[in-house]
Amino acid sequence: MKMTKLALISVLSLACISLLWMSRAYSAANDDTEIRQLLDRWKKAFEAKDLNGIMSIYEPGQALVAYDIVPPLQYKGFDAYKKDYQEFLGQFDGPIGMEIRDLNIVAGDRVAFARGLERLSGTLKGGHKLDMWVRFTECYRKTNGHWLAIHDHVSVPADFDTGKAVMDLKP
Amino acid sequence: MKMTKLALISVLSLACISLLWMSRAYSAANDDTEIRQLLDRWKKAFEAKDLNGIMSIYEPGQALVAYDIVPPLQYKGFDAYKKDYQEFLGQFDGPIGMEIRDLNIVAGDRVAFARGLERLSGTLKGGHKLDMWVRFTECYRKTNGHWLAIHDHVSVPADFDTGKAVMDLKP
Repeated sequence: MKMTKLALISVLSLACISLLWMSRAYSAANDDTEIRQLLDRWKKAFEAKDLNGIMSIYEPGQALVAYDIVPPLQYKGFDAYKKDYQEFLGQFDGPIGMEIRDLNIVAGDRVAFARGLERLSGTLKGGHKLDMWVRFTECYRKTNGHWLAIHDHVSVPADFDTGKAVMDLKP
Repeated sequence: MKMTKLALISVLSLACISLLWMSRAYSAANDDTEIRQLLDRWKKAFEAKDLNGIMSIYEPGQALVAYDIVPPLQYKGFDAYKKDYQEFLGQFDGPIGMEIRDLNIVAGDRVAFARGLERLSGTLKGGHKLDMWVRFTECYRKTNGHWLAIHDHVSVPADFDTGKAVMDLKP
């Protein structure tokens, strides 16, 4: 009888480990897909200048902190970042172009990040045409089974000799 | 006897869940501590211009990609980023000052990120004194039980009206 119990425990343990392993592999593939969909939703909303669509990928509240391409050093909280987006979109005449390249997503169980290059193009209200590549890093956490962004970092490099922001780089 | 087996399975399941829960909470606290120690090690090495000490926090190989404060858009791979660090450190006369503020670490089981502000100060070889605040985002993954950085993003904001990199902001 002791052997039977031992066998039962062993089988249960193995089944438990196998299930955990399988669910982890399944979840990792799903996480990657879900974050890709989130970025695709963001891209479409950004191009359409749909502020609420854009903000739907971010976690509401104070945890969200963004280091944007424009000053100040940081935007603290969902509302501050939403206002930043609103002002940014307001500078453009017509739609905005957005292309994402070199996208890389690394996802764990509750924390993930994406990085890549973005080509931002459009016409500013003064008539000036904008067409530039920027770098982005976006960090996520999973809440109630779904990924939401809690940190953005968007920038161009700086030239220390001239003090200029380098906006004409191409990948 | 059937009841005994059922009771045994129940107790084992509960014990299993409790252990998983405890190990997860313990691991999360440990992950946070380990990443803080890694950043502290990086800071000391950076201030001492110890290139190998700096690079000890990064994952060797091609997964590491950095968006640095200076051009180009991206540094691909450990060796390219090491060369970037080497050139950066070579610009300074004497030690470099580094202060980290508003540090925030979010760690999952295999992926984590840290973000914050860095005050970088020192004297360049031409005699020019540098004292500036930059934003940083650093992303990690756990390999063989230890955290290593696989992505850096360091920047200052850009002023779209003047085309200048904004290097005089204070938190």
